[in-house]
Amino acid sequence: MSLSMSAAEIAAFLGGTLVGNPDVVIRGVSKIEDACSSDASFIANVKYARFLNATAAGVVLVAPGSYDRETCERTVIEVADPYHGFLRLLEKYHPKLTWLAPGIDSTAVISPDAVVAGDATIGAFVFIGPRCRVGSRTTIHPHVVLAADVCIGADCEIHSHVSLREGVRVGDRVIIQNGAVIGSDGFGFAMSGDEYRKVPQMGTVVIEDDVEIGANTTVDRATLGHTAIGRGTKLDNLIQVAHNVTIGSHTGIAAQTGISGSTKIGDRCQIGGQAGLVGHLRVGNDVKIAAQSGIGSDIADGQIMAGSPARPLTAWRRLEGSLSRLPALLQRVRDIEAVVFGKDAQGKQKSE
Amino acid sequence: MSLSMSAAEIAAFLGGTLVGNPDVVIRGVSKIEDACSSDASFIANVKYARFLNATAAGVVLVAPGSYDRETCERTVIEVADPYHGFLRLLEKYHPKLTWLAPGIDSTAVISPDAVVAGDATIGAFVFIGPRCRVGSRTTIHPHVVLAADVCIGADCEIHSHVSLREGVRVGDRVIIQNGAVIGSDGFGFAMSGDEYRKVPQMGTVVIEDDVEIGANTTVDRATLGHTAIGRGTKLDNLIQVAHNVTIGSHTGIAAQTGISGSTKIGDRCQIGGQAGLVGHLRVGNDVKIAAQSGIGSDIADGQIMAGSPARPLTAWRRLEGSLSRLPALLQRVRDIEAVVFGKDAQGKQKSE
Amino acid sequence: MSLSMSAAEIAAFLGGTLVGNPDVVIRGVSKIEDACSSDASFIANVKYARFLNATAAGVVLVAPGSYDRETCERTVIEVADPYHGFLRLLEKYHPKLTWLAPGIDSTAVISPDAVVAGDATIGAFVFIGPRCRVGSRTTIHPHVVLAADVCIGADCEIHSHVSLREGVRVGDRVIIQNGAVIGSDGFGFAMSGDEYRKVPQMGTVVIEDDVEIGANTTVDRATLGHTAIGRGTKLDNLIQVAHNVTIGSHTGIAAQTGISGSTKIGDRCQIGGQAGLVGHLRVGNDVKIAAQSGIGSDIADGQIMAGSPARPLTAWRRLEGSLSRLPALLQRVRDIEAVVFGKDAQGKQKSE
Repeated sequence: MSLSMSAAEIAAFLGGTLVGNPDVVIRGVSKIEDACSSDASFIANVKYARFLNATAAGVVLVAPGSYDRETCERTVIEVADPYHGFLRLLEKYHPKLTWLAPGIDSTAVISPDAVVAGDATIGAFVFIGPRCRVGSRTTIHPHVVLAADVCIGADCEIHSHVSLREGVRVGDRVIIQNGAVIGSDGFGFAMSGDEYRKVPQMGTVVIEDDVEIGANTTVDRATLGHTAIGRGTKLDNLIQVAHNVTIGSHTGIAAQTGISGSTKIGDRCQIGGQAGLVGHLRVGNDVKIAAQSGIGSDIADGQIMAGSPARPLTAWRRLEGSLSRLPALLQRVRDIEAVVFGKDAQGKQKSE
Repeated sequence: MSLSMSAAEIAAFLGGTLVGNPDVVIRGVSKIEDACSSDASFIANVKYARFLNATAAGVVLVAPGSYDRETCERTVIEVADPYHGFLRLLEKYHPKLTWLAPGIDSTAVISPDAVVAGDATIGAFVFIGPRCRVGSRTTIHPHVVLAADVCIGADCEIHSHVSLREGVRVGDRVIIQNGAVIGSDGFGFAMSGDEYRKVPQMGTVVIEDDVEIGANTTVDRATLGHTAIGRGTKLDNLIQVAHNVTIGSHTGIAAQTGISGSTKIGDRCQIGGQAGLVGHLRVGNDVKIAAQSGIGSDIADGQIMAGSPARPLTAWRRLEGSLSRLPALLQRVRDIEAVVFGKDAQGKQKSE
Repeated sequence: MSLSMSAAEIAAFLGGTLVGNPDVVIRGVSKIEDACSSDASFIANVKYARFLNATAAGVVLVAPGSYDRETCERTVIEVADPYHGFLRLLEKYHPKLTWLAPGIDSTAVISPDAVVAGDATIGAFVFIGPRCRVGSRTTIHPHVVLAADVCIGADCEIHSHVSLREGVRVGDRVIIQNGAVIGSDGFGFAMSGDEYRKVPQMGTVVIEDDVEIGANTTVDRATLGHTAIGRGTKLDNLIQVAHNVTIGSHTGIAAQTGISGSTKIGDRCQIGGQAGLVGHLRVGNDVKIAAQSGIGSDIADGQIMAGSPARPLTAWRRLEGSLSRLPALLQRVRDIEAVVFGKDAQGKQKSE
């Protein structure tokens, strides 16, 4: 982290307008509340506007017109999207870590009929099975297992202890965090009398470009065909994706959510943590599902759902508001009954 | 997948009755909606009957009397249980994958006092600790760890990145999916003032014959004695089984369910995903528990439970039906109060 | 387990008072209901008092005055805290397993600029990356991966298949169960139009002394700064701790709970299983959260919360009690309406 830039250099890099001291030396980036005098920071939300003069940051990225130039005591750089500018600085000051030695570690076991790109990085103890393919500039960290016929594209990063099972296909620029399992057998059993008989899980999993999959998340292979995760979709940690599920593009799913077999989820959905979806559903595009929701039926495009069992958000809010009044309501009905029917404790106890 | 059979050969193999063209060549199996002309498929559910003439499948397995012979345009094979017949074909066309080289991989580390059957398959980087035993025809995939004194029976399949901790005993024909942890320390602590003091977890885990355990599922060792999973029971992915839990035979548990310490679950139960059971409960035989249920007390044989906290299914359904009417009920009671007590907004606000 | 002690020796070891036969030979420890004549056991809870004469245990630890000396047929040792005494015996009869060979396994790959204490134990296939440090008497089981710049203190036990990512710092006497992932990238994305853009996760994780982390639990690295788990805190299995979360000291969290980004949890909290906390919350000290709760707002010190969305325990109990009466309440209001407004099915259906 020996990079240092002046405020003027940062303004030029971001295409922004400098207001203040062009010579401030910036050696890092930080959140506005934690920044020191050699840090660049940003304010993108009016809730944080009060930090502009209070922060020690050497430079603050702000949107033009979002602050008072007259009273501002900091050196600022005006950019149209301060958070986006901050991300660009973050990447510049903290380039991607490349601590793994390039090339193929001598301890890796690679099947002779696997094809690994010459510029891929393969860590210690990696196992790559028969007929696998690993694309250009892809990094496979130590202790990853690729079973037979796994195909990984270019510019991927597969972290330690990931299992990729038979036939799994992974696109380009995919990131898989540690311990994730892709292509485990789906939970498919037929009853034979009182006993379960395993249904062979002959399909696989297809993961499209630009997907990220979180730590210890599990994605089961299809019974036939494939479980699919669409382009740009992001899965958090400890998520369960059952066999034959299809998830569309650019959908985000938070940790510990579970999606049962054969359910189809559309594009650009946002699903909170610990939500559960039963099997064989169709969830449309642009759907939002609150954390801990229980989804038991199809959801049309653009709906927002909450609760278990889930309701449209407005109905859920109305219900939750009503629930708080329920204990008092019971007393109110007792009071009414006393007037309408007369005091009758016997009857009341029966009807309750 | 170079197997091909004629419709007549398939009918003979399944002991079914061919109606149609005996010479159709079948090269694979598929779901009815995806099948092509060289696929065999099946219809077991009347919901799919409309696919019989619409499908491109070369052969369709159907139950005798379940379809109209007169209008049927497909070659069919009549069998008593079409799904069961389909599973037999599935296994015939997709025999179990055996891509791992037989024998013991040269990179495996096996303790000199471990005993591995001569016909077992041990993959790359497998670690087998002191006094472990691995039975006949069992396959241990790359990167599995067996700590000390682990005993695995015959015909098991242990997938990559599974941990089997000290003393764990596994029966015959057990399948453990990737990343599962069997025998981790139970969550046992005694308070010592405000601090936790670890209670040594000295027991282990016993897994009976024909069990399957899902990816990244965790089964903790007992404090004393053993955590037990009964014959033929199937656990899905990301399930938590705490210390000293006992699960009976032929019980199925869906993903992300959690079972707290010392709870006993009976035989032939079916537990949905993301359910939670508190500790020290007794759940009888043939119990069904809906997804996301919260179980806080014992359940008698044959009960069906739903909700959190869980109720018998009929009570839960009645409650859910009532809940939808609650917001309107509040208005109805206000209307009644207006008549019975006269308009009194002040009093109403107080009582709400 | 060849240790044997007489009842008199055990009484001396625990500083207790022997009542009965000093020569009974004790070869193990057991729960009161399972004990045989060569076992020591204990009764700490009056619920188990009936076992005192029924048990076969050779010696029972009891609190003075908690049982009837006159009718007692067993050899007992009176100690102030029978459970604590039992734990001391448990540790004496079952000393910590040390089946791993001491020293560094020849298959381990250790970066030349890593520093491993001479008395640390490093198992087979362990990978230790650049600039890592491993403290005295720490045991790293087979198949653990330490990425770059990981620092582990003294007397730790890191079980098989654990991933410790870049820069993670672990204190002394920390235990991490199998498959846990510490330092995976947080789930941080900025929207760029309809697509997610990854926010680099440049921070790390700091785990203080005496922490235990359960199997397959995931703790994400911070975006900037560090995710923190305080001294003596215990996490069960399959828990999700998101980026920039801070958990205080001596807090216990049960399995499958999820904590969203930047939430701060205080000291000595107890959180049940499958609870979910949204991001950016402040949870005070000594807070208790029931299993399956959904926490969406800050919680003051000492509060007890239950339900989803969570309420203070007393409000939650009142609500749950009311819910059971809701179906009957609907009928009662119908009965009132019939009297107050007269029979009017049409109107009722509308208002429902």
